[in-house]
Amino acid sequence: MNTKAYGAYASHLPLEPIDITRRTPSAHDVQIDIAYCGVCHSDIHQVRAEWAGTRYPCVPGHEIVGRVSAVGAHVSGVKVGDLVGVGCIVDSCKHCEDCNDGLENYCDDMVGTYNFPTPDAPGYTLGGYSQQIVVHERYVLHIRHPEDQLAAVAPLLCAGITTYSPLRHWKVGPGQKVGVVGIGGLGHMGIKLAHAMGAHVVAFTTSESKREAAKALGADEVVVSRNPGEMAAHSRGLDFILNTVAAPHDLDAFLVLLKRDGTMTLVGAPASPHPATQPHNLVGKRRSLAGSMIGGIPETQEMLDFCAEHSIVADIELIRAEDINGAYERMLKGDVKYRFVIDNASLAA
Amino acid sequence: MNTKAYGAYASHLPLEPIDITRRTPSAHDVQIDIAYCGVCHSDIHQVRAEWAGTRYPCVPGHEIVGRVSAVGAHVSGVKVGDLVGVGCIVDSCKHCEDCNDGLENYCDDMVGTYNFPTPDAPGYTLGGYSQQIVVHERYVLHIRHPEDQLAAVAPLLCAGITTYSPLRHWKVGPGQKVGVVGIGGLGHMGIKLAHAMGAHVVAFTTSESKREAAKALGADEVVVSRNPGEMAAHSRGLDFILNTVAAPHDLDAFLVLLKRDGTMTLVGAPASPHPATQPHNLVGKRRSLAGSMIGGIPETQEMLDFCAEHSIVADIELIRAEDINGAYERMLKGDVKYRFVIDNASLAA
Repeated sequence: MNTKAYGAYASHLPLEPIDITRRTPSAHDVQIDIAYCGVCHSDIHQVRAEWAGTRYPCVPGHEIVGRVSAVGAHVSGVKVGDLVGVGCIVDSCKHCEDCNDGLENYCDDMVGTYNFPTPDAPGYTLGGYSQQIVVHERYVLHIRHPEDQLAAVAPLLCAGITTYSPLRHWKVGPGQKVGVVGIGGLGHMGIKLAHAMGAHVVAFTTSESKREAAKALGADEVVVSRNPGEMAAHSRGLDFILNTVAAPHDLDAFLVLLKRDGTMTLVGAPASPHPATQPHNLVGKRRSLAGSMIGGIPETQEMLDFCAEHSIVADIELIRAEDINGAYERMLKGDVKYRFVIDNASLAA
Repeated sequence: MNTKAYGAYASHLPLEPIDITRRTPSAHDVQIDIAYCGVCHSDIHQVRAEWAGTRYPCVPGHEIVGRVSAVGAHVSGVKVGDLVGVGCIVDSCKHCEDCNDGLENYCDDMVGTYNFPTPDAPGYTLGGYSQQIVVHERYVLHIRHPEDQLAAVAPLLCAGITTYSPLRHWKVGPGQKVGVVGIGGLGHMGIKLAHAMGAHVVAFTTSESKREAAKALGADEVVVSRNPGEMAAHSRGLDFILNTVAAPHDLDAFLVLLKRDGTMTLVGAPASPHPATQPHNLVGKRRSLAGSMIGGIPETQEMLDFCAEHSIVADIELIRAEDINGAYERMLKGDVKYRFVIDNASLAA
């Protein structure tokens, strides 16, 4: 089936309308009419070939929400008309230890929603900046939010699960002080989720101007990390830090804010490494520096249900597909609160 | 009470005989006639002022074993004649969260066995290269090994607990593959302990010549880390890595050997940081890079009892006190299998 999309023909070219083809649903496939697609910083990295291996034309987008328009003969979990989501993963091996553990995100054969090998034309996956997508039912999530929140649910499929998964894995909850470093697409979700999990949330930003906004998101305290005095006040005070900043920065400045046995988990993907940390900051208080990547399918459903129950969505700015290039420029300047979401109905125009 | 010791009067001077004074035991003190004292690499760092703040004369030594020669009025746990040990810690605040958790090693006011502030003359602690020491009973450990193994028990008080504590904390046991990086004073204990805990042990060394020795210590497999093919064979194969190498080295080469959710824990104390790691190696498989420092008093007793039960001691080379300067030179060349231990009876000469 042909479907309209937005993509780029080369790393130096802007995104433009593209016609692409989706496969006919097979027995376990779900066909989705995409209503909205969030715009993740990864989309920019990939489409501009800042990450290796981009294939063109490239259609980004892995924060997909919409309505089921067809299902294969053996699909039992969803039916035509259901509100559903698709995140960063559209396939995996389905039989390794990671897949068996519901952590398809760590499967060596995970197939990302765009730019990953697939038997379908054109030989690699094409993402959610498109009218429709066809995905194996295993990777299709139920959305239980009210329909009028659907656009703001889209970013949960990447920004939401990428922050939810480590917060859950490291058992964030009541009685804990949790730091969230960076208040962008990921960080703003981290604050909302950690707050909803019952933790005392300390948000860290380099911008004095984000102080009030961070409180409005649910932060109990906000620290401007450029102010040494504010940082020192939290020395050895945090149980866990979720670090969402991809740009290389001084990790030691945050490691020393952890209590004994505390962990700082990186979820950003910097193009170059952070400066080396002082081993003493790990050894001296048995601290850990960890990383976490997206989340598995079962926990993505758990996250969506948690968010529906707690009335959590992303803070978004809705755009039309033809606005995407300008949106990218604004994202590179940090000028978005906190996620752009494409209204995919605009692709029909 | 006056006691003979070996120490240095300045960073550039060799160690030589020194007369020092020990306090009269107060109500909770234990006076110990030191039989043997292990020689730790930290001793060299401190006495040569490679670590900051060395006070002179400096008497190193924190792997102390001996026999109780006097006890204070309120001491109940040990009696005169008992075989006991003292490790890296001779005091702490006794009321913080760390102390209450039996992790005095992480107490902000931990008093190390040498070069830490104390009300006793000369105002800082003096270590185990001496005939006697007086220590609060809380920091005195029972030794249940046969007496003829006493010299080889000494290194358990630092090298033993420094490796035992992280192996236990990260729950090493049967069914797991555990890497031990570096086969020196710490690493040789790490191999013995991880083996006794039931793990499949993979030892990593830069020296082809240590291959057979590592197997004799209990390693199931030995990898010469300079051989890329040998390293690659363990890619994503290890549950936990105990990294005992203090010299700055490529941590990424070992991080990629961890399975999903694996941890590599640093126990060495490099003078300068290791090169920066690639965040992807943490993020991509939810791995952790951690640190651990010595161990608490209750777990030090647990370690000593575990070693007695499993007939574990260090592999040592016994020296006389006057051989200490030569021993330091050999340690700097890696020429010791695997720990020098001073026969403190030689101090009487």
